[in-house]
Amino acid sequence: MATLDQIIHAKAIELGKLALSATTAAGSGHPTTALSLAHLTAVLMYRVMRWDPKRPRAPGADRLVLSEGHAVPIVYAACADLGVTFHPQGETRAMTGEDLLRLRAIDSPIDGHPNPALGFPFFDAATGSLGQGLSVAAGLGAAARLDGIDKTIYCLIGDGEAREGQIWEAMDFIVDQKLVNVFAIFNCNELGQSDYVSPEQSWQRLKDKAEAFGWTALAIDGHDPKSIEAALRRRSEFAEAGKPLCLLARTVKGWGVPSLAGPGHHGTPVKPQDLDAALAALDARAAELGAAGIDRAASAAALAIPAPPAVPPAASPNRAPADFAAALAAEPKLAQMVATERRLSPRRAYGLALKALGAADPRVVALDGDVKNSTYALDFATAYPARYFEGRIAEQNMVSAAAGLAAAGKIPFVSSFGRFLERGFDQIEMALIGGLGIKLVGTHVGVTLASDGPSQMAVADIAFMRALAHARDYRGRPAMTVLTPSDGVSAYALAVAMAALPGACYLRAVRADLPILYPESEGFPLSGFKVLREPGPGRRKVLLAATGYMVHRCLEAAQVLAQGGIAAGVIDAYCLPLDRQALLERARRAAAPILAVEDNYIGGLASELAEAAAAEMNAPRVASLVVGNFPKSGRSAEDVLAYVHLSTADIVDAARTLAG
Amino acid sequence: MATLDQIIHAKAIELGKLALSATTAAGSGHPTTALSLAHLTAVLMYRVMRWDPKRPRAPGADRLVLSEGHAVPIVYAACADLGVTFHPQGETRAMTGEDLLRLRAIDSPIDGHPNPALGFPFFDAATGSLGQGLSVAAGLGAAARLDGIDKTIYCLIGDGEAREGQIWEAMDFIVDQKLVNVFAIFNCNELGQSDYVSPEQSWQRLKDKAEAFGWTALAIDGHDPKSIEAALRRRSEFAEAGKPLCLLARTVKGWGVPSLAGPGHHGTPVKPQDLDAALAALDARAAELGAAGIDRAASAAALAIPAPPAVPPAASPNRAPADFAAALAAEPKLAQMVATERRLSPRRAYGLALKALGAADPRVVALDGDVKNSTYALDFATAYPARYFEGRIAEQNMVSAAAGLAAAGKIPFVSSFGRFLERGFDQIEMALIGGLGIKLVGTHVGVTLASDGPSQMAVADIAFMRALAHARDYRGRPAMTVLTPSDGVSAYALAVAMAALPGACYLRAVRADLPILYPESEGFPLSGFKVLREPGPGRRKVLLAATGYMVHRCLEAAQVLAQGGIAAGVIDAYCLPLDRQALLERARRAAAPILAVEDNYIGGLASELAEAAAAEMNAPRVASLVVGNFPKSGRSAEDVLAYVHLSTADIVDAARTLAG
Repeated sequence: MATLDQIIHAKAIELGKLALSATTAAGSGHPTTALSLAHLTAVLMYRVMRWDPKRPRAPGADRLVLSEGHAVPIVYAACADLGVTFHPQGETRAMTGEDLLRLRAIDSPIDGHPNPALGFPFFDAATGSLGQGLSVAAGLGAAARLDGIDKTIYCLIGDGEAREGQIWEAMDFIVDQKLVNVFAIFNCNELGQSDYVSPEQSWQRLKDKAEAFGWTALAIDGHDPKSIEAALRRRSEFAEAGKPLCLLARTVKGWGVPSLAGPGHHGTPVKPQDLDAALAALDARAAELGAAGIDRAASAAALAIPAPPAVPPAASPNRAPADFAAALAAEPKLAQMVATERRLSPRRAYGLALKALGAADPRVVALDGDVKNSTYALDFATAYPARYFEGRIAEQNMVSAAAGLAAAGKIPFVSSFGRFLERGFDQIEMALIGGLGIKLVGTHVGVTLASDGPSQMAVADIAFMRALAHARDYRGRPAMTVLTPSDGVSAYALAVAMAALPGACYLRAVRADLPILYPESEGFPLSGFKVLREPGPGRRKVLLAATGYMVHRCLEAAQVLAQGGIAAGVIDAYCLPLDRQALLERARRAAAPILAVEDNYIGGLASELAEAAAAEMNAPRVASLVVGNFPKSGRSAEDVLAYVHLSTADIVDAARTLAG
Repeated sequence: MATLDQIIHAKAIELGKLALSATTAAGSGHPTTALSLAHLTAVLMYRVMRWDPKRPRAPGADRLVLSEGHAVPIVYAACADLGVTFHPQGETRAMTGEDLLRLRAIDSPIDGHPNPALGFPFFDAATGSLGQGLSVAAGLGAAARLDGIDKTIYCLIGDGEAREGQIWEAMDFIVDQKLVNVFAIFNCNELGQSDYVSPEQSWQRLKDKAEAFGWTALAIDGHDPKSIEAALRRRSEFAEAGKPLCLLARTVKGWGVPSLAGPGHHGTPVKPQDLDAALAALDARAAELGAAGIDRAASAAALAIPAPPAVPPAASPNRAPADFAAALAAEPKLAQMVATERRLSPRRAYGLALKALGAADPRVVALDGDVKNSTYALDFATAYPARYFEGRIAEQNMVSAAAGLAAAGKIPFVSSFGRFLERGFDQIEMALIGGLGIKLVGTHVGVTLASDGPSQMAVADIAFMRALAHARDYRGRPAMTVLTPSDGVSAYALAVAMAALPGACYLRAVRADLPILYPESEGFPLSGFKVLREPGPGRRKVLLAATGYMVHRCLEAAQVLAQGGIAAGVIDAYCLPLDRQALLERARRAAAPILAVEDNYIGGLASELAEAAAAEMNAPRVASLVVGNFPKSGRSAEDVLAYVHLSTADIVDAARTLAG
């Protein structure tokens, strides 16, 4: 009769062999990291986690976030062994050992790193760019608490990976938010890619750090089944005291295969001709441990996965959000100001919309990075404190936590200055790769922020976001939708539209109070644009296509141009991707060249239109006026616009030249 | 006779009053944060730092990095009081009190946040996007050690700012590198922008964290002159034991002005009508402290700034770097492979070039993030270990540390997978704003990385970098130069060119061994391109303009097209910004439309050419073939190229359509 230890050793070795075989079949991958996690994976996935391989996303199921995504073959091995439900090529079926050997093949969802969006729902989010998983786990934990589900979010983190600052942002966030349902496990195998990990990432140092960050930290032998299981079952003991628990699991990279020990074996599969010897080494290790020849029947009772609890159905929308007029009416002081001055800042309108969305849909949650009084996320935070997560000054964690919330069915709005969201570009891209519809809101965008200077101005944001907007995600949708409203009415409408859109989006909300341009009931279809002024008849013509703040400058410029005998139209291009054919067609019919005007670096609207025009025969000409030199502080928007050659006079000059 | 304490209080209050006046004059800024630093600034800049206001960048001078850049008015106040040398509007002169009152004006280098590139050389790097200063300080410390200069790099960090993970990356890096010349001072005023800081950023918690990270940490009263000075003079005591020292300075936001106490006063200047009362409150505080009426003469002896030591002249280039042939000859095994196979990976060529640069120029230093065996920075690390800084898995710190090294006159090459450099986009932009010529090298770019999948593929990098490439820096140069070599010869030449270029650049080095396209002596002028194949005569024509890996696919496609009766030229567009007029002119003369082919998302070469073509009358058409859908893992580059519709067949199809 095999002991439990022996059964776990046998399973760990079986998974290790599968992981070796899969990476050799793929011709790439990280078998040694996988082997270091063999026992942890076996205990977690066969004994401790409450889940159901047939329903890997059952709402009551415990979750596993593999932050060190390159270790994934060991998890795939367990999933193949357990016949987890997955979706190869659009099918829905149980994963097999043959599927495992299709690791990294172009037609397989068993990708090089975890990715649910490719059809592997066991995972909640894509990982592989290191240091992000614990933040994702925090988001999943926050969602579970909101939903009243008692589940545990396990997160496996590499020791080398623990050098990433984002890990420590997440450690803080989890303590701040008292997310004791998150369980962090550091895989301390002492080896990075190119060398041993630094002494700063030794298990002892990581233990000290975790304790200093307010966690309970236990060090264990990560290949000792009893120690692992005992430690994994202690979470609730500390949770009652409000302290999250983490493990420092001392492991061996390439465990069980002497030829894979030590440095120089990261990211290198065993060569086909060496595979049998490596597998035999693991068999020999099994024999040493008394774990040879334990068959499935003998281990079945010991490896009975605990079932996840049934959970109540998730909260769903109560009703449609209030429209702009109703939301404004609920804020009499603001309504009075708007009625009198006919101005409203897009960021203020965002705050209104977020609060209205919060009232209408319990799935809406919000995060902000210590600027909630500037982004107006404060309105939501005050009205719905349980659904608001203060991210503090740590944008990377905030973005990845939002990805975790989205994975759990929430609709997370993440706000900060647009400039500071650049801190999370990697995390944003990872969220999109995982198919997670995060709603980003960058305020204080563009050079008109003026006084604070270039360290606070989002001017390179649009180029990056537009690149993602023209990449189709795995469902064939634009991976990103970029929205730049030009007034309060459009900002409100677009913020509301973001919640309904399944994919990710980015709202660029200018700081300044801007004149209201649209009637309260105006609709703003995605990929659309608005014609604010027709060029009308004239010998010399131009169409000014602009975004956000610059729409107002173009309206001014159009008046100046008209006085000078140039018929100028003005278009508000509030969305990317844009229906550029329709816009070009308008210019063609008006026989007017287009001047694209934006207060950001190249890569936004001007490129969007130029690419379409350049590909056509006889398209209207498209010239651009963008920020072409580094901005600096100025005491007024005028001063800075002139400094970057985007004043109304600059627009008039460029339009005159273009109109001929 | 005034005591030293009274003299410091008087100076701190004087600086505080200047900071209040300046922010009120500017109509924006952060006077309360400035006041929390009044005493620390006074003791540092008048008593402890060895520096010379007339020569703020004297090589022997101690440095001050203001990581919480928004506190800058207090430092500007000291600089105005001391008549620091600065460069308003291109002049060189001593700063005055009047200059201080031009804070944030469009024609003033006294910007909203520190920025040396605008003409304020007291600072080494631009700060303002939080969490980056300690990494910059680490770079400055590393440079000082290399140069054998015994100086101290002081870094002031906000408590709220200490939530940024990058701070903890820097804490690790400084311990790893034993940079005991860096002195971190946390300004613990307990208030962020929107609220009190989290308990996780209390001074006690920060002290525990710093100690767990291997630092000596002392808590002091940040408004007590004696405590401050005593603590600041203790660095060397711990330095001998190899431990860096940090202070937790307990301070008061809005110190000395009761009406500015507590939350709600971040980033808000005192209103003009309230300024006199605020200044009077500070005067009253001075009186309480016995610090009223201390004039300059009375305090002159106590406030005598220690002079910086004279230092030997900096190391300068020994000689020109080896050319490709010589560098290759020094690696016989590789030379043999290249001679036989006529292939070389751009990343391997980068490794060769970096080592040759290291031999030729002692200013060349390198950093890498635990992938030095993949980027081939390992060659340099082995040959010049003192000039190599292993950044571990912490890209943000690595980029900002490189900025610090550049500020100190080094030529820092920073390598990682291109995808992982996205983690540092904010830091890259800040380095450029500060005018620092960092040399970025992203390897494994594009989808042809194949097996590892999208979490490891740089495909959105180019859009962001090109946006910066079309922004002129404060000297009027392209703020970024993007280089995508298509073979080993061009990779070598371009890497060598990077070192000579004063500005920042980004080399995109494909992982794959690629056929060598150029003779060893070929030159690659910046903003140039190479015509690898002329279209020649024919009725149907096309010009394929490509970057990197895709150049080879276009050469293949051109052959197929030629067989099908379409004359196809091939251009290697290795640099952005590109001389696009010259490229368009070639297409015009050949009467051929252009197909831009890149293995990245939109925003690179295709946009570059389309923008120029769309703005012209009768320009050649420009169509594009880019990555238009999210990639995934595949076992070969072919598989993934086909998956994203970039196979040779796809190029042929698109070219046929375009050629009509």
